Amino acid sequence: MILYNSSISGNCYKVRLLLARLGVDYETREVEVVDRTAPRDELAELNPTRRVPTVVLDDGRPLAESNAILWYFGDGTPWVPDDSYERAQVLQWLFFEQYEHEPAIAVARFLVSYSQLPREQYERRLPRLEADGAKALAAMERHLATREWLVGESPTIADISLYAYTHAADEGGFDLQPYPAVLAWLARFAALPGHVPLAA
Amino acid sequence: MILYNSSISGNCYKVRLLLARLGVDYETREVEVVDRTAPRDELAELNPTRRVPTVVLDDGRPLAESNAILWYFGDGTPWVPDDSYERAQVLQWLFFEQYEHEPAIAVARFLVSYSQLPREQYERRLPRLEADGAKALAAMERHLATREWLVGESPTIADISLYAYTHAADEGGFDLQPYPAVLAWLARFAALPGHVPLAA
Repeated sequence: MILYNSSISGNCYKVRLLLARLGVDYETREVEVVDRTAPRDELAELNPTRRVPTVVLDDGRPLAESNAILWYFGDGTPWVPDDSYERAQVLQWLFFEQYEHEPAIAVARFLVSYSQLPREQYERRLPRLEADGAKALAAMERHLATREWLVGESPTIADISLYAYTHAADEGGFDLQPYPAVLAWLARFAALPGHVPLAA
Repeated sequence: MILYNSSISGNCYKVRLLLARLGVDYETREVEVVDRTAPRDELAELNPTRRVPTVVLDDGRPLAESNAILWYFGDGTPWVPDDSYERAQVLQWLFFEQYEHEPAIAVARFLVSYSQLPREQYERRLPRLEADGAKALAAMERHLATREWLVGESPTIADISLYAYTHAADEGGFDLQPYPAVLAWLARFAALPGHVPLAA
């Protein structure tokens, strides 16, 4: 299997986290993500959005969208529950991640720590990203205040998905001290056997 | 079952479209969505983001995020395929919808046709929304040029999800004439038995 990867992307990190825990072997192809004008022709036939992560399965079929890839490899393992309501709750958090969390926290992190743009070129966007990110973190804090994991009694791909950019939120200027339940959950997740860091 | 609903929201329309086709009975509770400062206290215990759609199942358990609700009701019916690769492709399009399509096309539609704001208050945001929306529509056009439905040989919840805001894109100022495969797919979808319009 081939993973079209970026070593700095949290979306790619999600996939690497799950595959490491499942012991799935794969090759990586590094894709340039900082220069947004790069054509990415190698992805044109594989993914309508030309984004990473994109995987090419052993039979040559492509699959894109980080959370869809998590579901594909996680379903049938303990990382996706069997119960239909819990499965839908996992999806609820995966869609929350892509709609409420990533567009604020990952985008702020990219602009501040990776874009190589002068701050005045994106400064105007930060207040909205900070407000949206704080809202997403507050929703996680309320939920995790009474739970160890986002869904059910054990970690799922919902935890993997939200761990990826939450644990790197400081690179986007977010201070997690006001979110003690989130901090405890991050520590719990990183202590699981087989954990791999973002920059491995 | 209760559906916390907005009659103008495409995200809610997705749920109504599937439930109509499945013949599932439900009550609706209309939630104010134009005034974004409304507290929405009725949703506080049901959905961390306080958004519609949110459903409360017959046993009292809540579920949120339109595409997670589609999966919950669709899985086990012809609207979600059995094959694991096709299931992941359905999810790929659902995540595409929430990350690439809805934040451009639904937001432009809301601002232009429903927000009741004077145009000068949101005009500055339109060029970016138009460019992002055109990119999403072009990705759909390329994919649908050689296919009747987004995944496999019959309609799935991916078609339901992307139909909702695509068919109303004109309300956001999008002209669909440059996307003939998308227009043909919209017509094919609306001709399916049991179709219900957005404003029923």
